[in-house]
Order: sequence, then structure tokens, then C-alpha cells
Amino acid sequence: MKRIFLLGAGRSSAHLIRYILDLCPGEDWHLYIGDVNREDILRKTGGSAYSTPIELNAGDRELRRSEIEKADLVISMLPASMHLDVVKDCLEFGRNVITPSYVPDEMWSLNSEATKKGVLVLNEMGVDPGIDHMSAMRIIDSIRREGGEIGHFESYTGGLVAPASDTNPWHYKVTWNPRNVVLAGYGGTARFRQDGDDKFIPYSHLFERITTVEVPPYGRFEGYANRDSLKYAEVYGLSNIRTMLRGTLRKAGFCSAWNALIQIGLTDDSFEIPDPAKKTWRDLTASFTGSSKNDSLEYGLQSAFGWSADILDRLIWLGIFEEEPIRIEKGSPAFALQKLIEEKWKLGPEDKDLIAMWHRFRFVQDGKHFELLSWLTSEGEDAVYTAMSRTVGLPIGIAARHLLQGKWSLAGIHLPVLEEIYNPVLDELESMGVKFQESRSLFPLE
Amino acid sequence: MKRIFLLGAGRSSAHLIRYILDLCPGEDWHLYIGDVNREDILRKTGGSAYSTPIELNAGDRELRRSEIEKADLVISMLPASMHLDVVKDCLEFGRNVITPSYVPDEMWSLNSEATKKGVLVLNEMGVDPGIDHMSAMRIIDSIRREGGEIGHFESYTGGLVAPASDTNPWHYKVTWNPRNVVLAGYGGTARFRQDGDDKFIPYSHLFERITTVEVPPYGRFEGYANRDSLKYAEVYGLSNIRTMLRGTLRKAGFCSAWNALIQIGLTDDSFEIPDPAKKTWRDLTASFTGSSKNDSLEYGLQSAFGWSADILDRLIWLGIFEEEPIRIEKGSPAFALQKLIEEKWKLGPEDKDLIAMWHRFRFVQDGKHFELLSWLTSEGEDAVYTAMSRTVGLPIGIAARHLLQGKWSLAGIHLPVLEEIYNPVLDELESMGVKFQESRSLFPLE
Repeated sequence: MKRIFLLGAGRSSAHLIRYILDLCPGEDWHLYIGDVNREDILRKTGGSAYSTPIELNAGDRELRRSEIEKADLVISMLPASMHLDVVKDCLEFGRNVITPSYVPDEMWSLNSEATKKGVLVLNEMGVDPGIDHMSAMRIIDSIRREGGEIGHFESYTGGLVAPASDTNPWHYKVTWNPRNVVLAGYGGTARFRQDGDDKFIPYSHLFERITTVEVPPYGRFEGYANRDSLKYAEVYGLSNIRTMLRGTLRKAGFCSAWNALIQIGLTDDSFEIPDPAKKTWRDLTASFTGSSKNDSLEYGLQSAFGWSADILDRLIWLGIFEEEPIRIEKGSPAFALQKLIEEKWKLGPEDKDLIAMWHRFRFVQDGKHFELLSWLTSEGEDAVYTAMSRTVGLPIGIAARHLLQGKWSLAGIHLPVLEEIYNPVLDELESMGVKFQESRSLFPLE
Repeated sequence: MKRIFLLGAGRSSAHLIRYILDLCPGEDWHLYIGDVNREDILRKTGGSAYSTPIELNAGDRELRRSEIEKADLVISMLPASMHLDVVKDCLEFGRNVITPSYVPDEMWSLNSEATKKGVLVLNEMGVDPGIDHMSAMRIIDSIRREGGEIGHFESYTGGLVAPASDTNPWHYKVTWNPRNVVLAGYGGTARFRQDGDDKFIPYSHLFERITTVEVPPYGRFEGYANRDSLKYAEVYGLSNIRTMLRGTLRKAGFCSAWNALIQIGLTDDSFEIPDPAKKTWRDLTASFTGSSKNDSLEYGLQSAFGWSADILDRLIWLGIFEEEPIRIEKGSPAFALQKLIEEKWKLGPEDKDLIAMWHRFRFVQDGKHFELLSWLTSEGEDAVYTAMSRTVGLPIGIAARHLLQGKWSLAGIHLPVLEEIYNPVLDELESMGVKFQESRSLFPLE
């Protein structure tokens, strides 16, 4: 029997657990799942005899390590900041490990050790990062094989809400780690290349500089730049590309209203609110202004920042001007805002979410200029079997299967840009309905 | 003979070194000075027989520790982030230590150990923080002794340039660590209390929310909020005060132009500029915009951000639109900007700098409302014996004398808010011409 040790049974693990449990009987696998919340585990395993829940705080080094040591494969679905410790344990015990998160810079220093020990650390194996890399690389490699030269690549992904469940003025609900929703873009500077120039967007302008993206049949979205796209020019083997941009999709109208929250200061995670128990949302919002709390707080801010009526409506709906307690005992403005959106943007039990991904390539082949669009959409079943959980979890599940079946003999720190990885994973995803569409056209010279 | 070990012979150490060397013969002291730059030491000691230069990188743990072990008193004038290591060494060897910098939160955890070992760690002993605390506390204690109740305290300090040497449109020259000039306010959120309400200003708005302050005879300055003022309400014993604000002074017009640099993104210290050797200032500035570098870059930004002609003039003068190499081999936009201001805002050899400090108290005594203003100004002698060096260095020198003469028997982590410290220090400063002026008036009830 082979042991799989999964750390984290949160929002994105439902499909992954189902995928693995379905294979357990035939493959003689057993799934051990560690999470602080036993209920979260049981809800997803349905008490399957092929699974064992382990109540575990991933920060508990001893328990975590004893489970890793016993496992044949480790999957970490923990918050991104916790992967590094898990990976170090896996290297120590010689265990392959998969994560859906960005490779932190510090992790690259472990590459030699992993290679030497024959351990595969496969990161960025979810939807974004993950399916975006795999689908883009399949197209990039195919264009190159046919002699095309790629000058332009943009890729946008959004974890959104399906039209049938789109019931609030922000057109957004929380389908993944809400802390990441609140801190999207925070503390970094987005970097990308545009027409041959390096471009930088500080957080304070990130949600102001948006692109319109049309994803059939869902219509118009807006995209903002996501982290450091520059480094992916190298990763994709496109060092001389003139435009290289990875971005995030939101429904049209979201970004300018979210930008208003940033402008006020409500996404600030750098300090703890003094005496939060004594404060209402109106107090907290007023704290970021120069004047005392008064009846015209919202209109004063609107005029100072030049907000449209639409933006103000969304802020009012969210509740940041209400004389309601902020209801945290301790924490930053960002943490208070997280608690607010967890409530206001809660995905109802029957709600369906939506994953939308969209790539645009421009390339020259045989002297002609082409534009290729490629896009993927996927709707969730309900609030547990979400499209987010499907597109994050299935690529990881498929990779897990390949590793346990001995089909990949890679070692080192990797992300899924190798043909050996992306081909079987994309093919199997396609067989499960996670499938891209494509349009190709001649593109007039600018 | 007693050994004083001074770490750091940079911009703020000139007066301190002179003060100590003047006392060495009579007191039988010897001053050991460690700095990476031997010339910096010799320029300030003039090769005095009472001093020994030690070429030392403070990060060289072994050499640093061996000098600390031999010393009777340690003074750290290193960059703020390096004090903690020095303080830990001092605790290990039981040596008193003085620094001019803010007490980092992590340092408070050493308070018990310092107290137990009878070691004094005296921080915030320069001008701001330092003289501001001492002069404010002397007034606060005196008002309280007379039965007054303080409801309002504001304190602003600026390291500026004297009118005779004010020769550039920014009305500013670099008189202290230029990295701190560039990163003023960066990465934090200013916090203070105003009319009973907590107030927060994110970095992106810090230089927009300014107060006008008049410091005789120099005229009008602008003040912006400095870090966390809230915690000083406790430190000063004014927990229930309604207005509590510490701020920084700049000559009128500076803040809006500096804010423009922040708005563009040029103070960003979160990432390294790719290929800096290939880039000009115009390239770097254009990188923060949505369009390609073109002839109307400056006017496009002016219109996007609504800059006045004055602001644009200052930016043009600084050189951020020039086709000149940014001249760094590696580093962030903030680091490139630091190199630019070090050149453009260089203090000439004969230039005189200016320290201006201004406090405003409002208090009720015998049913009457009073306003008390207290201010200090000090001009430098030249580019070495600056007012900055005088007001940072002399309080430290005076404290050093008191400690070596056994006049203080304090232990633990302290800042100079105790009468035992501030009275002799302020008295001696006054005898050396560093002297406050005061005006008191009845203040009409609001």
C-alpha cells in the first residue's frame, strides 16, 4: 500500500480528495489528510475507508514530520508561506512533494539538494499558477515547432462567480483563501514587459491600470497585472519577447471599487488597529481621513478621490460606512476587511463559481503575423465542489497519480513547463471537461 | 583609563567625537572608533592621541564583539537596523550602550535581561527621537506639577538647510543617512490621535496630508506625520490625550513634490530594477507609466496626477526625465533615487544646515485654556560640523559623560523621558547654545 499525505483540507482540496479516493481501491493507495479542522476533512472524504483524518496544526513540526516520513508522496495545500518548511522536511526524508503555489525565491536554493537526493518538488501545479503555465507552454512549444516567433504573450485568470450566482454588486464571492483575496497585490510591485519596455506598477496604482478582456460566452472582464511576469519570460524560454504579462481577471467594475478600498487604506496589513473592540466600520473608515467622523464621511471621500456613483454604491453595500462593530479582537485593517468580505461575499451552499482563463499570443510565421486566443472556462457544482477546487486540485491529483505510478523520474525544484508534465496533465484534464477553446487570426501589422 | 567604543563615524558623529575627545585628557578616557571608512574616522578625530581608529565592518561579529568586550561604554551610531545585534553583545558582556535610534519592538524583549544584569540600553538619544522627547517631557512634567491637564501635543522636527545655503528648488540637502531620506515613511502607516480619534495615514497619502508650522525666524514649514505617535501617548504618560502627533518638517513646497516621486513609484524598495546598467532616468520613470517612453512623458504624468507647474519644475530639476544613466549596478528604484539625491542635494563643504524643532501644547489650568509653543533652531558650521551632528551627537556625548562618571545608575531599555536624564542633558545643551524658546498664551475655547 502507498501512503499519500495531504496537508490542508481547505477550500481548494475537495476535487483533489475525490480524485485520489476514486483511485485508492484500484491502486492500493491510502490517503492521510492533516488539517486543524477535522470536520473539514470528513466533509470531503465522506468518511471513506481509504482515508484517515489527522487533526494537525501544520506548525506542529514533530507531528508533521512523522507523517511526512511515513508517506510515499506529500501534497501541501497549506497557505503559501508554509510550503518551505514542508519541502525541507520532504527533502530530509526523500519524499516527492507537490504544491499549487508560487516557488518562493528561497526555495530555489534547495534545487541542488533535491536533484542530488532524487526528490521532485513540483510547484505552481494548481490553476494559476498551474494550468496557465501548462496550456501556455503547450501552445508556445507548438508555435516554435512550426517555426513561429512569439513576440507577445498575455495570460489572465480569475476565480469568479458564475452568472447564475452573481447576486451582489461587486460580482465577486470568496472561493479561495480570503486572506489572499484581501492582500492581492499587496506589498509587491507588479512587473511585466510591454512593447519591449519593462513596466512596473506599484500597489497604489495596481487596480487603476486595467485591461479589458472578453471571455466567451461570459462577456467582458477586467484584468490587472499579477506579480512579476518578467521572470516567466525566462521560465517559458521567451527571453526576448516584447510583451509578457500575467494578470488576474475580475468582473467589469470590480477593480475601481477595490481600488477605492486601497485608496482609503483598508487593505493595510502593516499595523494592528488600536482598541478594535470599541470601533465600528464607520470609525475605522473615518480613521483614514483628516476629519472627524461625520454625516458626510462617504461624500467627503467620494469627492476627495473622485469616485463614481457606482464605486460609492459598492462601498456602501459592503458596509464600510456602517455603525456596526468591526468584530475582530486583534488585527490589521486588512484582517478586519477580510472578516467583512467573508460575510458579505460568502459563497452560498448552492452557488456556482467560475474559473476563467484567457491567453493571447502574437507571433510571426512565414512572414505573416498571427494572433492566437486560447481560453478556458469552468463552472462549479456547488460551494464545496467549486471550479476553483476542480482546477486547482485535479492537476495536482493527476500529477500525484503519475508520480505514484512511477511515470515521471524528474528531480529538483520544478514548475510544470516541461512537455513530459503538461501533455499528460492537460490531456487528462480535457477528458474531464477542463478544456481550452482557441481562435487564430491574421493580425495586421501595427 | 576608561575605554569608549564608538561604532560608526558617519555624518552624525562629528560633534560627538569632538565632545568626547575634549574630555578625554581630563577624564582619562580613550575613544576607540570603528568604521568601514578609516578616512571618515581620521577626518573627525584629526588623529588625536586620545583616539584609535579601527577599520571595522560592524557586520564582522568577532571583531565587533572583541571591541565591545574591552569597552567601558559602547555608543552605536550605525544604521538603525544594526543596533539590535550590538545591544545583544553589550548585554552579554555587561556594557552600557547608547543609540540615537528608535527602540525596535524586538528590543523590548531584552528589558528583563538588561535590568537583571544592571545594563543601561539608552535609545532615542539623538535629536528626533531624542531632544524632542526630553524637551517635551520637561514641559509636560512642569505643566502637570502646576496642576495643568494636557489635551493636545504636537511635535515636529526637521533636518533642513539654512537659508544662506538654500540653493535648490527643493530647499533640501542631505545632512544624514540618505537611505533614510528616500525611505521616509516607506513601508509603514503613520498613526496619531486627533481630537480624540485614532488616525492612520498610509504611505501613499503621507505627503499629501500636511500641516503648516511657523518656526521663527525661519518662517513657514510643512509637517507630515512621523511613524506611530500613538505609542508615545503611553511613553509620555498622556494616555487620555485627545491630540498626539509627532511629525517631520520640510520647507514649504517639498512634500507635494516628494509625493509626486512616491506617486510615480520611484521610492519603491521592494524589487530590483532589471538591467539597470542599460537604463536612463527617463527609461526608469517611463517604466512606471502605461505608455512607451516619448516626448510628452512629463506632461502625461503631470496631467494624470494633476501636478502644479512647481511640482513638475522640481521633478525636471532633479533629473528623473533625463536621458542620463541611472548609474547603479544593482538595486531598487529607491536605491537609484538615493544615488540621484546624494548628488543633486549634496551639502557643499561650506553649506550650513538647519535643525528646526517645534512643539505645541494645549492644556487647561485653573479652568483656563492655554497654548504653549516651544521651539528650537540650530544652524550648522559647515558640512562636517552640521547642526544635525550637533543635535544628534551632543545629547549622546552628555549621556556618555554621565554614565562614565557614574552619575546614572539606571538599568534596562530606556528612552530619555526620565527627569534624571532630561534635566542635566537639556541644561548642558543649553549651555552650549542648543536652547529652546517659548511662548505661552491664553487659548480661546473651541
